[in-house]
Amino acid sequence: MRTDAAKTIEDRIRAIEDRLEIYNLIASHPPSADTAAQSYIQSIFIEDAVLDLGGAKTATGNRAIAEMPQRPAHQEAIKAGLAHFAGLPHVTIDGDRAVVTSYLQILAAHPTADEIEVPAHGVSRGYRIHRVGANRWELQRTPQGWKIKRRAYRTLDGSEPALDILRQALAPPSPDAKTVNV
Amino acid sequence: MRTDAAKTIEDRIRAIEDRLEIYNLIASHPPSADTAAQSYIQSIFIEDAVLDLGGAKTATGNRAIAEMPQRPAHQEAIKAGLAHFAGLPHVTIDGDRAVVTSYLQILAAHPTADEIEVPAHGVSRGYRIHRVGANRWELQRTPQGWKIKRRAYRTLDGSEPALDILRQALAPPSPDAKTVNV
Amino acid sequence: MRTDAAKTIEDRIRAIEDRLEIYNLIASHPPSADTAAQSYIQSIFIEDAVLDLGGAKTATGNRAIAEMPQRPAHQEAIKAGLAHFAGLPHVTIDGDRAVVTSYLQILAAHPTADEIEVPAHGVSRGYRIHRVGANRWELQRTPQGWKIKRRAYRTLDGSEPALDILRQALAPPSPDAKTVNV
Repeated sequence: MRTDAAKTIEDRIRAIEDRLEIYNLIASHPPSADTAAQSYIQSIFIEDAVLDLGGAKTATGNRAIAEMPQRPAHQEAIKAGLAHFAGLPHVTIDGDRAVVTSYLQILAAHPTADEIEVPAHGVSRGYRIHRVGANRWELQRTPQGWKIKRRAYRTLDGSEPALDILRQALAPPSPDAKTVNV
Repeated sequence: MRTDAAKTIEDRIRAIEDRLEIYNLIASHPPSADTAAQSYIQSIFIEDAVLDLGGAKTATGNRAIAEMPQRPAHQEAIKAGLAHFAGLPHVTIDGDRAVVTSYLQILAAHPTADEIEVPAHGVSRGYRIHRVGANRWELQRTPQGWKIKRRAYRTLDGSEPALDILRQALAPPSPDAKTVNV
Repeated sequence: MRTDAAKTIEDRIRAIEDRLEIYNLIASHPPSADTAAQSYIQSIFIEDAVLDLGGAKTATGNRAIAEMPQRPAHQEAIKAGLAHFAGLPHVTIDGDRAVVTSYLQILAAHPTADEIEVPAHGVSRGYRIHRVGANRWELQRTPQGWKIKRRAYRTLDGSEPALDILRQALAPPSPDAKTVNV
């Protein structure tokens, strides 16, 4: 985010406001997943958005995406203790498009571990890290603010798709960065 | 954080500075808890602040709040390896009030797990996630900067109080948002 | 980040841009470590930078630092499922120097735990938290942007070096804060 000499104060403030709005958008993902917030989820994806969680877990359209956490199995996971946990995201903005790369842990209350006491912090079986993965969020500015056009998530298990998401975060912006593709 | 046409440059920059100051405030919580930094903790809560950790774990007043980590049991937990770990927070500012919703892991060195080697990363029994929960921080602007008026924390174990904290982060701001209540 | 009355709009916007550039720098660390991105890592450290991971794990110079993840053992860890996971960092900027204090989890796919199913989230052995520690990043502004001059990392196992890193994040800036030393 080095400053281009040609940028006006207005341009610079707007770029900063974009960045902070995007942080809040990404920060709202775990609360929306962990409460199955159907209408909120629908509102933060564009109408023909794609959610690509790998394999068969793909949904197209913000209605279909927002329905996914309504399944009884997802509700059962919430009841048992579920937490999506977001790390510090890497954000690149280019005009009306942005790409965010972020790590995500999917945590679940451990069903069978021994109860252990931590002094001054009570007794708990603790939580398991069920998965850790990399997200690539492709965002688009809309009249209603920044929204998600495509989210791809891949588990960090040594396989290439997850590593590719991470590598793209480090790549210098390409000359035609307006067209962002995974 | 979409821009209101009526906002001046000064207003907009101040809103951004508020946001970044709040990020640092939230980021200072884990270091203060993990080192039992009594005077620092007292300084970031307003005098009649409330810390509500659920059940009987409640303290009123910044002196009482700052004394909690001084208990021998907390010191024992630090000695054994304790880490509060903060995810990306969601922040909403409204004038001189702000609400932050954030996830927090409470990690403790595992006392009994097998030692496992990770290539190039040594041998360790690892850490347990003792708890994962949602924080609701109600902040207030003071002449000494943003301070905490109320912090509520609930474990994400499928029960309603934690889910309620998360749902409130996704709710559209109410017309009388100046009065923030859990 | 309270505003000094003497600061111009330009100063204030620049301080904000610095902060956001630094967030992206810190956010790029996990992707660079988890993909062993040699040339990227070399580019974000100054030429005579120091990486101090404790004990014998120290490297001097950005070439040596960037070569560390090229070792076969590190590549093996990546293949088995490795994730560096960054919490919300605390940032203090003073002119052309900055200090960042951040928590870092080093996660590895669990090699032996039982497979457990989380409803709607598949079956997995899960991940272990191999280490949790505190980073102190000393940054320097360069003509090519903010770079790392020194990174120290200590495991949060109750020992003083890690606690010292955390305490320094909470200390009021010293009058001669331009000279930052661990």
